[in-house]
Amino acid sequence: MAAIDVALREIAEALGGELIGDGSQRIRRIGPLEDATADSIAFLANPRYRSQLATSIAACVIVAPALRDEAVARGAAIVTPDPYLYFARLSQWWAPRARCAPAAGVHASAVVDPSADVAATASIGALAVIEAGATIGDGAVIGAHCTVGAEAQVGANTRLAAHVTLGFGCVIGERCIVHSGVVIGADGFGFAPTEGRWEKIEQLGAVRIANDVEIGANTCIDRGALGDTVIEDGVKLDNLIQIAHNVHVGAHTVMAAFVGVAGSAHIGRHCLIGGAARIAGHITLADHVQISTCSLVTHSIAKAGHYSGAFPIDDNASWQKNAATLRNLHALRERVRTLEKTSSERRDSASITPAPSATDSKAV
Amino acid sequence: MAAIDVALREIAEALGGELIGDGSQRIRRIGPLEDATADSIAFLANPRYRSQLATSIAACVIVAPALRDEAVARGAAIVTPDPYLYFARLSQWWAPRARCAPAAGVHASAVVDPSADVAATASIGALAVIEAGATIGDGAVIGAHCTVGAEAQVGANTRLAAHVTLGFGCVIGERCIVHSGVVIGADGFGFAPTEGRWEKIEQLGAVRIANDVEIGANTCIDRGALGDTVIEDGVKLDNLIQIAHNVHVGAHTVMAAFVGVAGSAHIGRHCLIGGAARIAGHITLADHVQISTCSLVTHSIAKAGHYSGAFPIDDNASWQKNAATLRNLHALRERVRTLEKTSSERRDSASITPAPSATDSKAV
Amino acid sequence: MAAIDVALREIAEALGGELIGDGSQRIRRIGPLEDATADSIAFLANPRYRSQLATSIAACVIVAPALRDEAVARGAAIVTPDPYLYFARLSQWWAPRARCAPAAGVHASAVVDPSADVAATASIGALAVIEAGATIGDGAVIGAHCTVGAEAQVGANTRLAAHVTLGFGCVIGERCIVHSGVVIGADGFGFAPTEGRWEKIEQLGAVRIANDVEIGANTCIDRGALGDTVIEDGVKLDNLIQIAHNVHVGAHTVMAAFVGVAGSAHIGRHCLIGGAARIAGHITLADHVQISTCSLVTHSIAKAGHYSGAFPIDDNASWQKNAATLRNLHALRERVRTLEKTSSERRDSASITPAPSATDSKAV
Repeated sequence: MAAIDVALREIAEALGGELIGDGSQRIRRIGPLEDATADSIAFLANPRYRSQLATSIAACVIVAPALRDEAVARGAAIVTPDPYLYFARLSQWWAPRARCAPAAGVHASAVVDPSADVAATASIGALAVIEAGATIGDGAVIGAHCTVGAEAQVGANTRLAAHVTLGFGCVIGERCIVHSGVVIGADGFGFAPTEGRWEKIEQLGAVRIANDVEIGANTCIDRGALGDTVIEDGVKLDNLIQIAHNVHVGAHTVMAAFVGVAGSAHIGRHCLIGGAARIAGHITLADHVQISTCSLVTHSIAKAGHYSGAFPIDDNASWQKNAATLRNLHALRERVRTLEKTSSERRDSASITPAPSATDSKAV
Repeated sequence: MAAIDVALREIAEALGGELIGDGSQRIRRIGPLEDATADSIAFLANPRYRSQLATSIAACVIVAPALRDEAVARGAAIVTPDPYLYFARLSQWWAPRARCAPAAGVHASAVVDPSADVAATASIGALAVIEAGATIGDGAVIGAHCTVGAEAQVGANTRLAAHVTLGFGCVIGERCIVHSGVVIGADGFGFAPTEGRWEKIEQLGAVRIANDVEIGANTCIDRGALGDTVIEDGVKLDNLIQIAHNVHVGAHTVMAAFVGVAGSAHIGRHCLIGGAARIAGHITLADHVQISTCSLVTHSIAKAGHYSGAFPIDDNASWQKNAATLRNLHALRERVRTLEKTSSERRDSASITPAPSATDSKAV
Repeated sequence: MAAIDVALREIAEALGGELIGDGSQRIRRIGPLEDATADSIAFLANPRYRSQLATSIAACVIVAPALRDEAVARGAAIVTPDPYLYFARLSQWWAPRARCAPAAGVHASAVVDPSADVAATASIGALAVIEAGATIGDGAVIGAHCTVGAEAQVGANTRLAAHVTLGFGCVIGERCIVHSGVVIGADGFGFAPTEGRWEKIEQLGAVRIANDVEIGANTCIDRGALGDTVIEDGVKLDNLIQIAHNVHVGAHTVMAAFVGVAGSAHIGRHCLIGGAARIAGHITLADHVQISTCSLVTHSIAKAGHYSGAFPIDDNASWQKNAATLRNLHALRERVRTLEKTSSERRDSASITPAPSATDSKAV
């Protein structure tokens, strides 16, 4: 990793925003506001942390217009409508300067089939395997120990980290990032039962991944049984996710770690799926559906919105009592019903009997 | 992937069933009924989709005897008692015709210890590592980047996809399929506590996998602590499953993605374990037990049957209210008890007091 | 694996404890008490299995002082205050004798950058890749197919099994064990939303792992966004765990398989996190917190103790009824409230009205 030492002015020139203060100030780090150093650029995206502004010694703070005066009172600032987005773009400007770029060309130790089509500007890492008929696009980076299967396609400027498996015939678009341990194109899980055994259904489809998709470490995306498994543009998948065969994930949907999507589920666009949530097979989620972490989605959701289902945590003793009661919850409801019935009968009788009784008394 | 172009007759001759219609019809795809093309063979396994029969333009439809007339009315058909099973076998007939078979022999880039015993008909992929004393059976396929540890054994016709790790001394039988990223024979998770630290218990057992087992991508099967971890014949494991040390999985049991089985659990034969279900350590599940997705099995189950335990999903606002109430469920039960007691006392008093009172009144 | 054949005396001399009986007895196995062979050494750690003592034919049993007489009555014994810890140490003494040690030096097929600093006593396995500027300490073992990224550091006597990915700039201390498929230093999952898309936040931090840490197969530890992700001394992580960016895991904490820790969570020391538990982002767990399996921790826990939250399993029919009721739990509570109110009003009216009424009656 190379050390970075730039003038503040260079950042503002590259990324925009209104720079207030000394543009010649040297910047050597991006830091969180709270423990920034005097050569750091920091950002304030969440007004909750506003109090850190006064005490931070950061060389420059990226802030929204509303905080301009406060920021300027303490030193240099870059004013921009969306400081978090500005930070994202700053990180993208920063990373290639801090890291060694992989060299274009095929590493001497890689095993590339002569029939593979590897762009001259692509980088094929040490001990990578590129099988027959595979295509590697312009500027693509194939990390060390990757396997790109026969007739698979990697789009331009897509990066595969070390140890990625891209199965035969699978396609990944442009500007994607695939992290280590990802397996794209393993067989979907399909069997026909017969006489107490399971007969394999060969998975004859593939996986098609569009552009600008990011896939986290050790995530699995299975190939389709007949048609393909499809991931649309801009989808972001965290680590250790399971996408089963013939699933369709709509554009710009985000899933956190350990999400499992069962076969042939159809997830809409712009969905947010929390960690360890499970989506049952053959169901459909509308666009803009948000699922909370650990929730099990057992039926289609036709309406955008936020859905949840997870057991609340408690101290173990309380949980034990509540869980034991939960196992008899239906019976408890029946008891409440009985009480309601009794109460209602009593109320009925109360509204009839006592009155005459009182009357009787008085009548006596 | 090779293009397939066969006469319908060839399929029926290979797989049986009663062929009705033009056997010379060319078949180039296996398709779902609903979007089949005119050169597709499709199947109808679920009567629910019966309405698709009339409108499908598939060249041939595989149907059960009950749908013979309906199928024949629209074109060629193969009539067979179990269309889904027929489809499975068709997929198996199809796949090797559509794909390049790996060549027998050891790829020049593979690293094979001279003491390893590799069958002449086995295929060892690019950059695979076969360590000392390992055995690779007839017709076995070891994918690119696989590691087969010292003295490990791979049975005849078993296929390891790319990037499989088979640990030293571990054994896998015949006709198994192991997908990419699988780790067989990592250490089980065992430690003895001492003075606030954890002392490692070396895992001295191995993993023994029988015949016809399939193991999904990135699944882990740990070696035993003293004895072995055992997977019996015909077990099918989906992706991202965790089988801990000394677990025993009975024949023909199926587990969906993310299932976790803790140490020394003993799972019966013909069980169905839903995705993300957890089986606690040191417990036993009888044969033919079905566990629903996301359920946590904390105690042995002695009786075949279907067991479940997962929080139902709801819109987030409803969930919040219900979850908050759940945290006080035990208290709610106590309140119901109190009401029942009060109601019962009142009933008792109601059956005694009013009568005398009325009598009193009347007596007055 | 080499066969082991030692005199019982050798074990006691190496590991201590009071040896009672024939020290020349040959020991060839470590076995569980119940199915030990006549050349086995077994241990009895849990008094629950005490009854197995009399019937075991093990050559020697490791027992606590309280069971000395019982053990000696049946044959040789080693008496030690903590038999389980003794067993752990015995397994550590045993393992290197039973297994081939990897040879020091760099395998001819490995790809080691000339600028990497590899200790002469380290072992670099077949087809491993060591990138520019990486450091491999004394006695460290890098397994086959490992990737050690640029400027990454592996401490002395740390072992990476086959297929480990250690990302650029990441650091792992001494005496650690990292199992196959582990990915250390993939990008944390960070994006800024903008106009319906997600803008990547480059992850500029790294991962720092201290000493004596063990990491199970296919576990992922992401690099930090700005600062580092930190794993302190003696932490033990099981398989398939997800540690997100900027998480901090305190010393000697243990996590079982499938635990997910979201970004910037801070886990205390000596915590026990059960399998598939989830820790939300940006929260803090105190030292000595125990979380039950499958529990979702949504808020900070300031106090040591045991916390749980998981739906209890039941037969499917019962679960369905209880789960359906659960979806209306809040309404049920309201119904109980109504009943309580009614009951209370009745009691109030009962304590006021009837009395005068009776008085009235009597007054009449």
